[in-house]
Amino acid sequence: MSKVKTSNRTRIRRVPTRAVFDREILNQILDEALICHLGFTDNEQSFVIPTLCWRNENRLYVHGSTGSRMLKILKSGASVCVTVTLLDGLVMARSAFHHSANYRSAVILGPMHHVDNETDRLSALEHFMEHIAPGRWATVRAPNNKELKATDLFWIALDEVSVKVRTGDPVDDVGDMDLPVWAGVIPIKQQFGPMAGAKDMQLEVAAPNYSTVFGQRWVNE
Amino acid sequence: MSKVKTSNRTRIRRVPTRAVFDREILNQILDEALICHLGFTDNEQSFVIPTLCWRNENRLYVHGSTGSRMLKILKSGASVCVTVTLLDGLVMARSAFHHSANYRSAVILGPMHHVDNETDRLSALEHFMEHIAPGRWATVRAPNNKELKATDLFWIALDEVSVKVRTGDPVDDVGDMDLPVWAGVIPIKQQFGPMAGAKDMQLEVAAPNYSTVFGQRWVNE
Repeated sequence: MSKVKTSNRTRIRRVPTRAVFDREILNQILDEALICHLGFTDNEQSFVIPTLCWRNENRLYVHGSTGSRMLKILKSGASVCVTVTLLDGLVMARSAFHHSANYRSAVILGPMHHVDNETDRLSALEHFMEHIAPGRWATVRAPNNKELKATDLFWIALDEVSVKVRTGDPVDDVGDMDLPVWAGVIPIKQQFGPMAGAKDMQLEVAAPNYSTVFGQRWVNE
Repeated sequence: MSKVKTSNRTRIRRVPTRAVFDREILNQILDEALICHLGFTDNEQSFVIPTLCWRNENRLYVHGSTGSRMLKILKSGASVCVTVTLLDGLVMARSAFHHSANYRSAVILGPMHHVDNETDRLSALEHFMEHIAPGRWATVRAPNNKELKATDLFWIALDEVSVKVRTGDPVDDVGDMDLPVWAGVIPIKQQFGPMAGAKDMQLEVAAPNYSTVFGQRWVNE
């Protein structure tokens, strides 16, 4: 089992039994998530910005428009925090106190690295699209030079990470087990589709089948 | 129309056409979301922690175990950032560059306020549960004194907020409109259920009907 790299800063102190060190679990979380929340400090104020993300090997990538405040700060090399969260369910206990949530989360610390090279930028963007919609990259108009220049890409290494997972039923106090309260889990899933063609589509183009990607969460038309 | 309060720090610079100032939209985002991402700075390092949240009037609440690092920092009164994001769809354009996402997000800045009083803590927790599962509070075992002491609650005022919304079809370049590429939106929804009773339920208790709360996103057994 490949291990998640951690540090004193990412060691889990609260409910350490939820800490996970299996690298495969980390990869699954990052590959299932579409967005991350990126935290940085500007002028002593914390900011948390949601942005699309994708993993390639030991790196998690984000992109954005050159000139945005966030990307300027990322370029400074400051250590940031990138958090990815999948909310899997609401945990309903017999007592108010033991209510909880099922979730999988990854908290990644470190500096962001700028993708300077246009060739690397292009291949990272291709990787992103192919992750979400396999086969699509070859069909769309590729970025031109102006568009590539207007797109900034960054990655953070998966070298200082904490992964937390809660699954399963509520854990109630022994004395509460006989209370006449429904206890259990309300699962939460992301559901994709049905795909909705753009109103200004001028050509009859069949909707591609990306449903295999997201499996059962996808609803086809 | 009640307006979202903003500031120079929360003024939207990137794609300002996506800025939204309708207070009702802000409330809808916060009421639909179950989690927020809370950003704070500790020892010059940014941290972003996912946590459950709920709104009451002009306040967004979070809770957690007393003694957690995050809650200790919140108590210090430092200005933090609380971000709530709903990912509504993937926007598939004819060109790689114009791919996008539909989303609704709120970024809230300011200090967190500690709920010192146990009576206020109890009523805030009741409000939280009733928001997610109306009618449930009266059926569960209420928190005892020890549990109430072990729970910290905080709120942030909705006084310095930026709200961003993107909806609808991709916006492609005029020159790309005739490309034989499927363009449109892949909607994303959170789906709740079916409710799964705890394996250790010793009594026959019918699953309550919370389906009205989350509307069509709920799948009943």
